[in-house]
Amino acid sequence: MKISEIHGPEDIKEASIQELEELAQEIRTFLIQNIARTGGHLSSNLGIVELTIAVHKVFDSPTDRILFDVGHQSYVHKILTGRADKFYSLRQLNGISGFQKKCESEHDVWEAGHSSTALSAALGFCIARDLNHEHYQVVPIVGDASIVSGISLEALNTIGMKQPNMVIILNDNDMSISKNVGALSETFTKLRTSKPYNSLKSGLSDLLNNNDAGKNMLHKLKDVKDSLKKSVVESSFFGDFGLDYIGPVNGHDLKALIQTLEIAKNHHGPIVVHVCTIKGKGYSFAENDKSGKWHGIGPFNIRTGETLSQLDENTLSWSEAIAQILYDIAKTNKDVVTITPAMTSGSKLEKIAAAFPNRFIDCGIAEDHAAVLAAGLASEGKRPFLSIYSSFLQRAYDPINHDIARMNLPVVIAIDRAGLVGEDGPTHHGVFDIQLLRALPNVILAQPSTYEEAVDLMHLAFSLNQPFALRYPRGNVTISDHQPEKIAVGSWTYKTIGSQPKCIIIAYGNEVEAIKQKAKANEFDMIVVNARFFKPLDTACIQKIAQQKLPVYVHETDMLAGGLSSAILEYCNDADIDLKLHRIGIGDHYVHHGSVSALRKLEGLDLNSLFDQIEEFYHAH
Amino acid sequence: MKISEIHGPEDIKEASIQELEELAQEIRTFLIQNIARTGGHLSSNLGIVELTIAVHKVFDSPTDRILFDVGHQSYVHKILTGRADKFYSLRQLNGISGFQKKCESEHDVWEAGHSSTALSAALGFCIARDLNHEHYQVVPIVGDASIVSGISLEALNTIGMKQPNMVIILNDNDMSISKNVGALSETFTKLRTSKPYNSLKSGLSDLLNNNDAGKNMLHKLKDVKDSLKKSVVESSFFGDFGLDYIGPVNGHDLKALIQTLEIAKNHHGPIVVHVCTIKGKGYSFAENDKSGKWHGIGPFNIRTGETLSQLDENTLSWSEAIAQILYDIAKTNKDVVTITPAMTSGSKLEKIAAAFPNRFIDCGIAEDHAAVLAAGLASEGKRPFLSIYSSFLQRAYDPINHDIARMNLPVVIAIDRAGLVGEDGPTHHGVFDIQLLRALPNVILAQPSTYEEAVDLMHLAFSLNQPFALRYPRGNVTISDHQPEKIAVGSWTYKTIGSQPKCIIIAYGNEVEAIKQKAKANEFDMIVVNARFFKPLDTACIQKIAQQKLPVYVHETDMLAGGLSSAILEYCNDADIDLKLHRIGIGDHYVHHGSVSALRKLEGLDLNSLFDQIEEFYHAH
Repeated sequence: MKISEIHGPEDIKEASIQELEELAQEIRTFLIQNIARTGGHLSSNLGIVELTIAVHKVFDSPTDRILFDVGHQSYVHKILTGRADKFYSLRQLNGISGFQKKCESEHDVWEAGHSSTALSAALGFCIARDLNHEHYQVVPIVGDASIVSGISLEALNTIGMKQPNMVIILNDNDMSISKNVGALSETFTKLRTSKPYNSLKSGLSDLLNNNDAGKNMLHKLKDVKDSLKKSVVESSFFGDFGLDYIGPVNGHDLKALIQTLEIAKNHHGPIVVHVCTIKGKGYSFAENDKSGKWHGIGPFNIRTGETLSQLDENTLSWSEAIAQILYDIAKTNKDVVTITPAMTSGSKLEKIAAAFPNRFIDCGIAEDHAAVLAAGLASEGKRPFLSIYSSFLQRAYDPINHDIARMNLPVVIAIDRAGLVGEDGPTHHGVFDIQLLRALPNVILAQPSTYEEAVDLMHLAFSLNQPFALRYPRGNVTISDHQPEKIAVGSWTYKTIGSQPKCIIIAYGNEVEAIKQKAKANEFDMIVVNARFFKPLDTACIQKIAQQKLPVYVHETDMLAGGLSSAILEYCNDADIDLKLHRIGIGDHYVHHGSVSALRKLEGLDLNSLFDQIEEFYHAH
Repeated sequence: MKISEIHGPEDIKEASIQELEELAQEIRTFLIQNIARTGGHLSSNLGIVELTIAVHKVFDSPTDRILFDVGHQSYVHKILTGRADKFYSLRQLNGISGFQKKCESEHDVWEAGHSSTALSAALGFCIARDLNHEHYQVVPIVGDASIVSGISLEALNTIGMKQPNMVIILNDNDMSISKNVGALSETFTKLRTSKPYNSLKSGLSDLLNNNDAGKNMLHKLKDVKDSLKKSVVESSFFGDFGLDYIGPVNGHDLKALIQTLEIAKNHHGPIVVHVCTIKGKGYSFAENDKSGKWHGIGPFNIRTGETLSQLDENTLSWSEAIAQILYDIAKTNKDVVTITPAMTSGSKLEKIAAAFPNRFIDCGIAEDHAAVLAAGLASEGKRPFLSIYSSFLQRAYDPINHDIARMNLPVVIAIDRAGLVGEDGPTHHGVFDIQLLRALPNVILAQPSTYEEAVDLMHLAFSLNQPFALRYPRGNVTISDHQPEKIAVGSWTYKTIGSQPKCIIIAYGNEVEAIKQKAKANEFDMIVVNARFFKPLDTACIQKIAQQKLPVYVHETDMLAGGLSSAILEYCNDADIDLKLHRIGIGDHYVHHGSVSALRKLEGLDLNSLFDQIEEFYHAH
C-alpha cells in the first residue's frame, strides 16, 4: 500500500496486515526524507508509525476522537488523514503545523504543544459525549514521560473517579526528549518487562476468535477470574487510579496492536493500553540516540546523520553559551545546584550534569515542582539555577510567585527560548515572560545583548540575595574569553551612532547590536539604548531619554501588553515625565509558526520594518 | 502538662504519654476557645493535635526540618514552639500568621499557603543537607487531598528517584476542605482499612524492645522477609514511586504515633508514614462536618456552633451571588458544566452540585487539570464554568493561556476571592489576575460593581463564543430580582456626582458605588467611572475622560504593575492621547495578613485615603 493511495483513514480500513506493514515502511522513508529537508520531530514520529496506523484502522476518526498529547508525534496521523502532499511546507509559514491543528483537518480535534494536556482534555470530550448521549470513543495518546507529569496524574485521578469510556494509549518508549527520569520510570519498566503481551494474548486468543470478539472482553475475563488477567488488569499502578489496563503490546507489531485496540475499543470504562515503542525506530542514528539530538532536528544529511547548519568556531547557541558560563561559575561556587524539567538536552546542560552529578537534578516534565524544589534548596542556603524554556515557565508561574518571589529566595531563573522560537509556533513562542515576571515583587528580570553581558549578568545574579531571572533567545551568539565585570542592578547602557541623532531606540537582547550595525550601515544617526533590565528599570536613563526631545522607539520582540514599554509608561506617568513612545512589538494575538525571520517580518518586528517606520516618521515631521 | 509550661519543643521531650495526652486535651480546648474568637482554620488543627505533639517529641526542631504542607494546620506547632501567648492576635495585622512564617520562629523553616509544595521543598532541603554532609531529618506533613495534587506526585517521583532520607507524614483524614474526590481517594481508603497498624505493631513489638529500637528497622524486617511487612512496605501505591511505607497508624494514639515515628526517623531512604486522623476531632460540630463549613471559620459561638456574623436577608457573599446566577443560567442552558478544583464549599457551589450532578465536576486540588478539562469540554460544544480563586488561578495560568485563550475556547472563568482577601494574607491575596489575563489574546476580563451588573455580565459571558473571565471579591453584595439586560463588551459607565465635577475617578468592583456614596456624602463633585471591563477597554470612554481636562484618579485594589491603569496608559500612548493618571493601588511588594479594612488602610487603598489625596491635590492646584 502506498501513501499516494491514502486520502483519508477510510483508505486503510480494508487493507491487510501485510499491506499496512508495507505502508509503515513507506511512511518511515517518507518521514526521514521530508524531515531531513524541513527539520522537525523525527524520532517520536518514527516510533509511532505502526501505532498510528493501527489506531486509524481500529477507530473511526473523526467520529472517534484521537488526541495526541503534545502533538509533535502527529505526523503519521497527518499522512493518514490526507496531508502527505503538504509535508514540503511542514512548520513553515502558511505551511502545515508540526502539531495537531484544528484548522488543518477535521481529524485534528485537539491542539497542544505543551505536554500532558491530552488526558484532561479527553475527559472533557468524554463528559460532553456522555451528556449528549453519544457513543463514540475518545482516544488520548500519551507518552510515558508525559503521563507522569502532574496534570496527567491529576487527570487520571478524575478519570478513575468518573469512569467514562476512554482508551488511553500509553506510548511507552522509555524516553522523554532524552533519557527518562523519575521513580515511576522504573515502575513502567517493570510493567513493560514482567508481563509480556504474549502471555496475555495466548489467554485471549480463543475469545478473539469468537464472533463477539472484543466486546466487553476484559469484563468477561474478570468474570472467569483468570489469574493472569487479574494481575494484569488490577494490580498495576493504573489500578490504583481506578483504571483497567491491558498490555504491554509490541508497538511495532501491527497485528497485535490491532487486536488489542479492538478489545479496548469495546471495553466498558477507561482502559490504559500499554504500547511499547522504540523512539527513532527504523533510522539507526535516531534509534541509538539517548541524548535527545534526534528528538527535534534541523535539516540533516540522511546518510551521515550530520545536521546541515554548522556554526563557526566562535559561535554557540545561547543555550550552550549560558551553560558554559554556568559551568565556570559552578566550578568555584559549590552551592550552585542546576535544575531542569526534562530539558537537559534542549538547554545544553549535559556537561553540567556530567561534571556536577550531585548538583544536577532533572525533574522530568514538572515545571512547577522544579520551581518549588529550587525554592527549597534556596531556603537552605543553596544557589539553585532553574533552567526553563520561557513558554514552559508559564507552568511555573505560581511557584515563582508564591514560593520564590514571595519568600525572596535567591533562585537564578534561566529563561531559555525567550521571544519568538519559529517553527514550533504559537504554543512555544516565549513572549509572555516579561509581562509575567515584571509584576512580581523582589524579582530582577534581565536579558543580555551580548555574550559578554551574559557573563556579567550571570555573575551578578549569583552575587545577589534575591530571585534573578535571565532570559535569552533561541539562536546563536558570538563568544569570547570575557572576564566578568561588575554591572549595577537596573542599569541600562546606550550608544550614540553618528553625530546628529534623529531618534532614540530602546531595545534589548540580540536586537541592540543589530540595530547599531544597521544604523551605521544606513548612516542613520540615532541613540540606541540597551534596556538590559526589565525590572528594575533604569529610571535615570529614562529621564535622560525624555530630556533629548527626540522621537523614542521601543523595539520589543515580545507581547506589547504589560511588557517593557508598558513598564516605562507606568514610570513616566508616575514621575510626571512627558514621554511619547513609538511601541513596536507583538499585538493582541498569537503568532503563527514559521521561521523566526519570516515571523518577524509578518509581525513587523524585523529591522527593515523598524527602519522604514523610523524614516517615514522622520520625513513626515 | 499545661500549655503554659511550654516555651519550646524541648519542654515536651521528657513528658510521659499520659502528660502528653493531657496536653493534647488542653490544646484542643485552647484552639476552640481562641478560634471561636478570632476565626481561623479549626478542623484541620483539631485533627492534628496528637500528631504534632508526637512529631515534636520524636524529632528535634529546628535541626530536624518540619514542613507543613499548606501551613494552615500549623497552629499546634505554633503552640509547641512557644507562641501560645500570641494567639490572641492570630491572623490579625501585626499578629501571628495563620500559616508557617519564617520571621515568627526558627521552627518555621518553610512557608506556604497554596497546597502541595511541601514535598518538592522537602526534597530541596534534603539535597542541600546531603551536599553539606549533614544528617538531620526532613519531615514534610502532607494531607491526603494535597498529596494527590500534581506537584506532590511529581515530587514523589523525584524523591523516589533520589532516595534521600525523608519522613513523609501523610495526614489522612479522608477530606480536603470538604469531602475528598478522585480515584486515589478510594485507594487510600483501601490502604487505610485493609492493613491496620495493630497487626504491624505486633510484628514490631519485639524489635522495638531491643536497644537498637528503630534503627534501620524496616530494612531488618525486609531481611527477615516478614510477609506482613512485605505487603505493607512494598505493595502500595507509594511503592510504585520507589517509597517505603509504614502504617496506617491511628493519628490520635500518641503511643503508636511516637513508636512509628521513631522507626521512620531512623529509616534509610524516604518513607511515607500513613497517619489516619479525624478532621475536627474533639469538637462535635467540626467532627461531623462534611461540607467544609468548619475548615476555615469566622468567630463562632462554641456552644451552638453558630457563626457570629449574620447577613441580612438581601445580602449574599459574592460567591453565593455568582452561584445563584449560575444556577439560573444552568437551569435553562443544558450545556453549562461547572468545574471546581476542590472549592465546592468555598465558592458555594453545593446547590449547583446537587441540582446538576452530571454537569458538575470537583477535580480536587488540581487547578491546571481543571482548566484543561474546561478547554476539552468547550472544544466539544459545552459551556464550561471554571470556578477558581484568584490566587489559585495562578496555577492555571498556562492552560488558560496555552489551551483556553490560544484556541479561543468559550470557557467562563469565574475568579473568586479577587483582590485582598484579608486574614489569609500574602499567599491568598488575589491581586495578580488582572495583570495576568489582560495580556492574553481572545480573553475578555470583567468585574461587576453590583449584583445587577453581575447578572448582566454572566449572561453576556455565556452568550459569547470566546473565553470570558469574571472576577469578584471576597465579601458581600446586595441582591435583587434583576432580570438580565444587554451589556456591550468593553463598555464602561460613568456617573457625575454634583454639578461641578472637580475630578474623575476610574474604579471597578465594589468600589464604584462606595465612591459614589462617599462623594455624595462629602458633597465632593466628581465623575465616577465604572471600568467594568479590564479587557477590552472602553476606548471611547477614555477619550471622553481625557477631554474633560480634569485630574484623573485610577483606584485599583490590585497590583499596579500591569493592571488597569497600565492598560489605559498603553492605550493613551498609542492613540496619542495626553492623559496623566493618579494611580492608587498596590505597589511593588506583597501585602500582609490582617482584616481587609486594616490592609486597605495600610496600603492607602481605603476611601478615606483616596478622598484625602484628592482633596489635598485639589487644594494645592
